[in-house]
Amino acid sequence: MLKKRVSLRDIAEKAGVSTALVSYVLNGKKNRVGKEMTDKIRKIAEELNYEPHHVAKSLRSGKTFTIGLIIADISNPFFANIARVVEDEAKQYGYTVIIGSSDENAQKSWDLLHVLLNRQVDGFIIVSAENSQKNILLLKEKKIPFVLLDRHFPDIHTDFVTTNNYKASYDATVHLLGNGYDDIALIAYDSDMYHMQERIRGYHQALSENHIVPRKEWLKKVPFSDMDTRVRIAIDALTTGTKPVRAILFATYGLAINGLKYINEKKIKVPDDLAIVSYGQAEVFDLYYCPISYIRQPLEQLGKTAVEMLISKLKNPDETMKQVFMEAKLIARDSSVPVRVKTPG
Amino acid sequence: MLKKRVSLRDIAEKAGVSTALVSYVLNGKKNRVGKEMTDKIRKIAEELNYEPHHVAKSLRSGKTFTIGLIIADISNPFFANIARVVEDEAKQYGYTVIIGSSDENAQKSWDLLHVLLNRQVDGFIIVSAENSQKNILLLKEKKIPFVLLDRHFPDIHTDFVTTNNYKASYDATVHLLGNGYDDIALIAYDSDMYHMQERIRGYHQALSENHIVPRKEWLKKVPFSDMDTRVRIAIDALTTGTKPVRAILFATYGLAINGLKYINEKKIKVPDDLAIVSYGQAEVFDLYYCPISYIRQPLEQLGKTAVEMLISKLKNPDETMKQVFMEAKLIARDSSVPVRVKTPG
Repeated sequence: MLKKRVSLRDIAEKAGVSTALVSYVLNGKKNRVGKEMTDKIRKIAEELNYEPHHVAKSLRSGKTFTIGLIIADISNPFFANIARVVEDEAKQYGYTVIIGSSDENAQKSWDLLHVLLNRQVDGFIIVSAENSQKNILLLKEKKIPFVLLDRHFPDIHTDFVTTNNYKASYDATVHLLGNGYDDIALIAYDSDMYHMQERIRGYHQALSENHIVPRKEWLKKVPFSDMDTRVRIAIDALTTGTKPVRAILFATYGLAINGLKYINEKKIKVPDDLAIVSYGQAEVFDLYYCPISYIRQPLEQLGKTAVEMLISKLKNPDETMKQVFMEAKLIARDSSVPVRVKTPG
Repeated sequence: MLKKRVSLRDIAEKAGVSTALVSYVLNGKKNRVGKEMTDKIRKIAEELNYEPHHVAKSLRSGKTFTIGLIIADISNPFFANIARVVEDEAKQYGYTVIIGSSDENAQKSWDLLHVLLNRQVDGFIIVSAENSQKNILLLKEKKIPFVLLDRHFPDIHTDFVTTNNYKASYDATVHLLGNGYDDIALIAYDSDMYHMQERIRGYHQALSENHIVPRKEWLKKVPFSDMDTRVRIAIDALTTGTKPVRAILFATYGLAINGLKYINEKKIKVPDDLAIVSYGQAEVFDLYYCPISYIRQPLEQLGKTAVEMLISKLKNPDETMKQVFMEAKLIARDSSVPVRVKTPG
């Protein structure tokens, strides 16, 4: 067992097909070989303990057929799910994905980049951490193909695919205004990242266009590292006093989860006491007693497009740069239904 | 920028400390260097664009200071969170983790193993997919250090750290019986994996010890690949007919999420119509209108122990094998409170 190296020809003979067809199937190229034949060839390969000879293949082609994916936080379901999409899509092209998580930490993302560089991945897909610009500059300097996913740095000219966050916040705010909520708060991260700035800008713009002067105390910026405590403080400030807000827009999934837990504790009723819209998508929003309206980022399309862009760049390194903004979609549900006039008592 | 290689000595000089101390800090050894000094040294290293010379280090030591982590499904929050723990812990020892996800697919886990092997990781931590025994046999044959995490194969002698799943199911079932529920169903995966078999065995044992003959139709085995539809069919069967069950134990988080969605659709009231206990842990269980009782697996301890075991094995490859079972803890909440006698009407 596992002694003699099994060749493509061995598999082809056993399957009664051409070596080319076996190669086609086992390299996972997008193809029109029927599922039955694909399964048969894969099964025989497995029975024979076929080991694809990555090293030999990479020596011939100079490629390793491996993509390095650096995500910002593996414990965030948005990134975990996008990683799954990237893997599935890369597999269609015969690429394997190895993943590192930077935990939103610039130093860690720098270390990871080097670990993966030393392991000779063909290219990178990166969800950048804050202050990690020098990673990008290094890749550009070394002329290593990469695509930024979900987040980008507007001052650095790169390929990227991201959500139009400005528009998403704008739409969510207009939706709340349209349903009769006028005092609308935004709880965001205290971050210089462009996507977060855009989420704030869209919110401000929607208020201004509707002749509402955004009050400074409506925008709460919470540090990622102390989210739990600081979201509570923010909600206390927003929901008490003489003029409590009528709606909160959460700029991330993590902020919303922490916020909803505290809102439950305080026995604030959604949407009667407080309307909610949030970024992110997760089972929690479906199963909450009052289904939460959310901004659905095009997770599947973002992941797929990043892979397609990278593969295309690997084939043709001189290709023109691509910068893709995708639209998020507001999914309106019970947590932001039109204001109900309270009956007295 | 990034031209001349920065040495540890450069950093030491700038920080006014010894080169040894800088090495100590930057290699991330568990240490007693104060946080302030650690931060200072890291900051200087970053300012100088210090690049740890992994390759040179690995040539000297024969080590790459990299751990390959293969998880069963990155989109499952249990594994995504355990990956986060493994990374944090590995970092304490100066190791970087690169991750692959097998999507519960034996072929994919085989491919991933080879991709990571070719990239010279020092050792592996693996959450095994079903039918992936040959991965383990290959690692044993090649004498590559590894630790199995969360799942193991009882017929293959290896190091592993896992939850005592038998005991966890047993405890959950006894809890339900003690609270007055006697017709208890189990929805599990249709899987040969040992951990799943143990979850079933504990449930059966608890019923038998309490003089309840487990009815065959109470155990629903659902294939992973068709979970959505099949959970609905199972719940329909369990909650209708002449003798609907009074409680359901879900053997995984994914099963519970699908189940709860359908239970909501059917307007079944938890716990009055149906009590619920589930494996897994997630925000959903906290934020559900009736907080869900769950089996808390020792996620943090499992991840940490796997890293410690692997590091110790890397230092001393002849170390005796270790097989660790950890206890899960039942967190009883509203979804399984003692049966309330219904008032008529």
